[in-house]
Amino acid sequence: MKNTYNINDFKFHYNIETRWKDLDAFQHINNAVYATYIESARVDLFKRWGIPGTNVGKSIIMASLKINYLKQLKHPSSLVIGQRVSRLGKTSFDIESVIFNEKQNPVCHAIVVAVCFDFDSQQSVQVYENIIKDYEG
Amino acid sequence: MKNTYNINDFKFHYNIETRWKDLDAFQHINNAVYATYIESARVDLFKRWGIPGTNVGKSIIMASLKINYLKQLKHPSSLVIGQRVSRLGKTSFDIESVIFNEKQNPVCHAIVVAVCFDFDSQQSVQVYENIIKDYEG
Amino acid sequence: MKNTYNINDFKFHYNIETRWKDLDAFQHINNAVYATYIESARVDLFKRWGIPGTNVGKSIIMASLKINYLKQLKHPSSLVIGQRVSRLGKTSFDIESVIFNEKQNPVCHAIVVAVCFDFDSQQSVQVYENIIKDYEG
Amino acid sequence: MKNTYNINDFKFHYNIETRWKDLDAFQHINNAVYATYIESARVDLFKRWGIPGTNVGKSIIMASLKINYLKQLKHPSSLVIGQRVSRLGKTSFDIESVIFNEKQNPVCHAIVVAVCFDFDSQQSVQVYENIIKDYEG
Repeated sequence: MKNTYNINDFKFHYNIETRWKDLDAFQHINNAVYATYIESARVDLFKRWGIPGTNVGKSIIMASLKINYLKQLKHPSSLVIGQRVSRLGKTSFDIESVIFNEKQNPVCHAIVVAVCFDFDSQQSVQVYENIIKDYEG
Repeated sequence: MKNTYNINDFKFHYNIETRWKDLDAFQHINNAVYATYIESARVDLFKRWGIPGTNVGKSIIMASLKINYLKQLKHPSSLVIGQRVSRLGKTSFDIESVIFNEKQNPVCHAIVVAVCFDFDSQQSVQVYENIIKDYEG
Repeated sequence: MKNTYNINDFKFHYNIETRWKDLDAFQHINNAVYATYIESARVDLFKRWGIPGTNVGKSIIMASLKINYLKQLKHPSSLVIGQRVSRLGKTSFDIESVIFNEKQNPVCHAIVVAVCFDFDSQQSVQVYENIIKDYEG
Repeated sequence: MKNTYNINDFKFHYNIETRWKDLDAFQHINNAVYATYIESARVDLFKRWGIPGTNVGKSIIMASLKINYLKQLKHPSSLVIGQRVSRLGKTSFDIESVIFNEKQNPVCHAIVVAVCFDFDSQQSVQVYENIIKDYEG
C-alpha cells in the first residue's frame, strides 16, 4: 500500500457529498460510512455493467472489503471516488477505490473482492464480459 | 396541508443526492432517511445562523418533527430541499421544509419545531436575532 | 400531547438497543434514528398482521410521521417501545408509539398515519381485518 | 483465513440485534452495516480500556478494516460478536472479530488495525497497558 494516489489513475469517477449524519460522536465522518460511499460508487459501476439491483438472476456479491484509512474527514466535504477493476479471476475480480477530498488528497483506499453470482442457481459464475472489458480497456 | 408546493416559495435551497444505501427492502428510499435529508439542510441553516455543531453554549434543539410523505423516491435522485422559517415564538420557531425531485414535484413536506437552547444553563432561551431576521426577511 | 406515558397503556412491546453509531456529533442519539427505532417496532407489528416485507400485493405504506422529542438519549441504552393502534379509518389507521428508557421514562412519542395499499393495483384498500382486531381488542 | 470459527475462541462477547433498516434493496443485511455491528462491539471494548468517547486526549483510531463476508444475513437475527486482541505492535494492535448467527455459524470475520493516538499532540503513542493485559491474558 502506498499513500499517494492520483484520481487520473482511475478509469471511473464518482462524486459524493458528505451528510451531517455521517459524523459520529468523534465529530468526524464515521469509519463505516466510508464503506457506504464506496458502495454507492460501486453500484454505479454495476449499473454500467447491467447488473440488476435485485437479488435475482446474474448479479455480483461481495467476498471481502479492505479499507485503509488515510485521513480524517469533516462535514461538509465534496468527495470524488476513483474506481478501477484491478484484478481479474475466473469467477471473482477486485475493484480498487480511492476517495479523494477537495484538495485531491486521498482519504482512504479500498479493495473489494467481488464474485459473479447467479442468485437463481445460488452459484458463482464466470466473470461477465462487461467487467473483462473494463479490466482490459 | 396542501399537495402543491413550489421551490420558489422557499427562501433557502439545499441540494442533496440519494445514496444506494438509502433504499430499504421495499426498494424505495426509506422513510427515516427523509428525516436525514431534512436534517442536513437544517444544519446548513444553523451554520448560517452561527450555531456551533457541538452541545455547548447557545444552540438549537428539536422539539418535534412532522413529515408528510407525498411521493415514493428511487435511487439515484437529485433532490432540492426548500426551507423557510415559518413560525416565530418566544423561545421556539418552526422550519418548514419541502423536498423536491428532479421534476420539481414535492416528495415530502416537513415541519420541525425547534427550540433555542443554552446547553450550559440547560434552559431554553429567546429566539436568536439571526433567526428573527430570516423570518421577517 | 401529554408528557406522561406508561408502558402498560400499550398493547405491544418491542425491545431495542442503541448502537454507538446512532450517536451524532452532539454525542446524543440522533433525531432521525428515533424514526428507525419506531420503524423496527412497526415492522414487527406488520409481521404479526401478515404483511409481506416486499413491495408486492397487499401492504402498508406511511402517509405521515410525527415525533415529539421528550428526552435526550445516551448510548448504551436499552429501550422498550410501546405500540398500539390508536385510530381506525376506512383505508388508513394510526399507530401510536412511545419509546421508554431504562427508568421507564418516555423518550419520545410518535404517531404514524399508515395506509393499507395494494402495490399491484397501486391503490389504497380497506384496513385489513387483523388490524381492526388489534384496534378493538 | 479459515471458514470455521468458534465463539469460545474469543475472550469478549457482545450481543447485537439486527434492525429492519439494516436490510438493503437486496433484502439482506447491507455489507457496510457489518462494520457498524463490529464498531459497536469495539466501542464496548474501548470502554473496558477506559478510552473516552470524544476526540480529546489519549484515544484509539482505526488504521484499517478488513471484512470477509461468509454468510448472508436476514432480519431479524440475534448476533453474537466474538472479539480478541490478536496482535500487539508498538503503537498499534489488531482486534479480530467474528460475528456469529443464532446457529453459531460465523457470518463474517474482521480484522481492525487500531492505533493508540493522542488527540492533543496529534501523534501515535505506545499501546496502553489495559490493551497489553488483554492480549496477554
